[in-house]
Amino acid sequence: MGATQTLGRFAAEYPFDGIPADVLHLSARCLLDYVGISLGGWAEPAVQIACSVAHELGGREDASLLGGGRTSLLHAATVNGIASHVLDFDDTHEPTILHGTGPVMSAALAAGEARGARGVDLLAAHAIGFEVAARVALAVHPEHYDQGFHVTGTAGVFGAAAAAGRLLGLSADQMAHALSTAAAQAAGLREMFGSMSKSLHAGKAAANGLYSALLARGGWISAAEGIEGRRGFWAVLSSRMEPQRATGQLGESWELRRNGLKPYACGVVSHPTIDAMRRIRDSAQLSADEIVDVRATVNPYVLELMGKREPSVGLEGKFSIFHCAAIAYLDGTARTRQFTDDAVRRSDVIELRQKVRAEVDATLPTSAARVEVAARDGRVWKESVTAATGTPDNPMTDDDITEKFLSLVEGRLPPARARETAARCLAAADLGDVRELLSLVAGR
Amino acid sequence: MGATQTLGRFAAEYPFDGIPADVLHLSARCLLDYVGISLGGWAEPAVQIACSVAHELGGREDASLLGGGRTSLLHAATVNGIASHVLDFDDTHEPTILHGTGPVMSAALAAGEARGARGVDLLAAHAIGFEVAARVALAVHPEHYDQGFHVTGTAGVFGAAAAAGRLLGLSADQMAHALSTAAAQAAGLREMFGSMSKSLHAGKAAANGLYSALLARGGWISAAEGIEGRRGFWAVLSSRMEPQRATGQLGESWELRRNGLKPYACGVVSHPTIDAMRRIRDSAQLSADEIVDVRATVNPYVLELMGKREPSVGLEGKFSIFHCAAIAYLDGTARTRQFTDDAVRRSDVIELRQKVRAEVDATLPTSAARVEVAARDGRVWKESVTAATGTPDNPMTDDDITEKFLSLVEGRLPPARARETAARCLAAADLGDVRELLSLVAGR
Repeated sequence: MGATQTLGRFAAEYPFDGIPADVLHLSARCLLDYVGISLGGWAEPAVQIACSVAHELGGREDASLLGGGRTSLLHAATVNGIASHVLDFDDTHEPTILHGTGPVMSAALAAGEARGARGVDLLAAHAIGFEVAARVALAVHPEHYDQGFHVTGTAGVFGAAAAAGRLLGLSADQMAHALSTAAAQAAGLREMFGSMSKSLHAGKAAANGLYSALLARGGWISAAEGIEGRRGFWAVLSSRMEPQRATGQLGESWELRRNGLKPYACGVVSHPTIDAMRRIRDSAQLSADEIVDVRATVNPYVLELMGKREPSVGLEGKFSIFHCAAIAYLDGTARTRQFTDDAVRRSDVIELRQKVRAEVDATLPTSAARVEVAARDGRVWKESVTAATGTPDNPMTDDDITEKFLSLVEGRLPPARARETAARCLAAADLGDVRELLSLVAGR
Repeated sequence: MGATQTLGRFAAEYPFDGIPADVLHLSARCLLDYVGISLGGWAEPAVQIACSVAHELGGREDASLLGGGRTSLLHAATVNGIASHVLDFDDTHEPTILHGTGPVMSAALAAGEARGARGVDLLAAHAIGFEVAARVALAVHPEHYDQGFHVTGTAGVFGAAAAAGRLLGLSADQMAHALSTAAAQAAGLREMFGSMSKSLHAGKAAANGLYSALLARGGWISAAEGIEGRRGFWAVLSSRMEPQRATGQLGESWELRRNGLKPYACGVVSHPTIDAMRRIRDSAQLSADEIVDVRATVNPYVLELMGKREPSVGLEGKFSIFHCAAIAYLDGTARTRQFTDDAVRRSDVIELRQKVRAEVDATLPTSAARVEVAARDGRVWKESVTAATGTPDNPMTDDDITEKFLSLVEGRLPPARARETAARCLAAADLGDVRELLSLVAGR
């Protein structure tokens, strides 16, 4: 049995009560993080434009927009998916750089709301959808990503199809057709990084995956080997494939355990450098104008993904290791406020940014970095980070995620409602109906 | 100026009255052909499933489904696009194997209807959209196709964005963003051939292109070099690119002049073989059971695309050079009736099919073939076709296209309305509003 059929059977039939409790809790943490970053990103132009197009197109109002209002399932998946990724603040599956929850949860929430699913079903469907997306990506990583595909779009669509399909009650056969139909729509290019279309990848992956599931429920027949076939997703979008990474130990190991949440609102590969700069700030107590040199030694992906030397707008700052290092030292953190247009143009930021050098060391994983800061008086501080905050080996606590959530929804949800929403997300396994959570977010 | 900006400017600003009259007429022929094959394919399960999902999702009823009823712009583009490709009977841009009109016209019709565009604007937008899709494809042909991408999906989306964007009145800058946003959604795999998801490529290319144009009109910002950038569409989805094929002589040469319409309802590369078999049938007057051997010498793509030795359902018959050759001899034609499930299972068809051999000759273009038929008594008939019926060097006449249209809409449109619709399509340049044509098709 090939990957399309094997993953289809897994997604349709793996018993929800077979999912370990820690995996379901990881899923609840993802839900909390997802709702917070989506609400935090709601005012972004990309989200607002997509909202207004959705409004213009109309649709049966079966699903909630996280930022308020209702629309059709597909529009909700698209817009919520864009919102979940627009701040570049969402989760990262370490082995593949997949940002999986945006596509998967956006599709699952829409389908779950339409079906009145229980909270535990939403979490389980997310865990299974995440698993499918991550495994489809694993089989072609790193070649697929190195070639220039944005895996959040290209692999996210499979996870969205799986999660939505499960909540819609697809059979194994229908689910395989849904996954193959997702392959027919898989898209996303790294060229889009730094533009609104990067977040569109997450939104369209969610919507196209959900659409695949809806078609499959209606009897849609797709290619039997859409993922693994000679002209299928893996062969065509990668120079190499390792199918057993997709199908081996299915249901025994869980990719959510290798998923990290972001404490900082920028490219995840910069996080160890930010951790190091924050530590040096705390230990050195040195004012920025006394610094003469900052040398960061990092994984080669860092310069490839975040090599923007002189960012001129906030979004570019998220893809500049130089900006990240500088502002983390100056502000002691790297939240959304550190990536506004004003922030990248601050004179103190520009001054320190120009002192930052980055060197690559291919033996360092993306979760690690070494940083040296030299002062005018000759003193040098060194920090070596092996597992950045938020990575699976150094996870954010539930309280950390709650705090991140509260800071993101500030001004959007009243404080009491914000706290209740956070608590309900973390305890989503106890929700009788996901619509309760969505009503709470909407203040209905 | 790179391709994204150059094509954006062309699509937004090339004056409609600069399009040569013969090109506009080619566009009108495409419109007639498009409406006919879409109506002819309307009862297919793929179209019906997509219709029912569109109905379930709902939307503002701003656009017509060709087979009846109204829905949102995006659903109309999706479903009409699926219908236009589901019979594998649509046009083919010879140099790239792009089936361009399905994606482009489906997006243009929806946008044109919403805006109340004149017929001549629809034709001009189609000509421009077709040009953009074909040129994006040309720059990476044949590598892109050989790698396994279905160019109708992957390049069709650019044409759909261009045509819809023009009718929506995008500026050159907005159009460039629309084309780049199309790049972010470009998808389609040859693995899907023979399944419903093949026609989904055309439908989603139409809808995603239209969506890109709607986003761009709202202010969406995409990557500046979405097509030609280092991680852009060409670099990531092809091993080689030749940008000047996309941008050279823009507005001076027209790719619609290299577009063919299909007289036969199957893979276009089989058409010269079908022509040859029909000629031998006429000249030899030999009953099929006297034939002992049929040898077709064809371009290598024929076996790659149509190598199905023993088709068991109608759809597979469309991808079997063996079936095509046999049934063309037996029935004297190869219309939709020759590709039903019953047709591929007919005993006379199976018997003759088993006598067909195919050999490749890489020096033959896809529009040419040599066929030899040997009889039991030792006689041999040979036919050599250099330009198959329907190719640009041997085009169908307007009457041929009208006859194809009438046969496709039989039973769906009353004869008088069918004739009037055909005439109106061919004379679409005189339509004051495309809604008149759509009302006529719908019988409103």
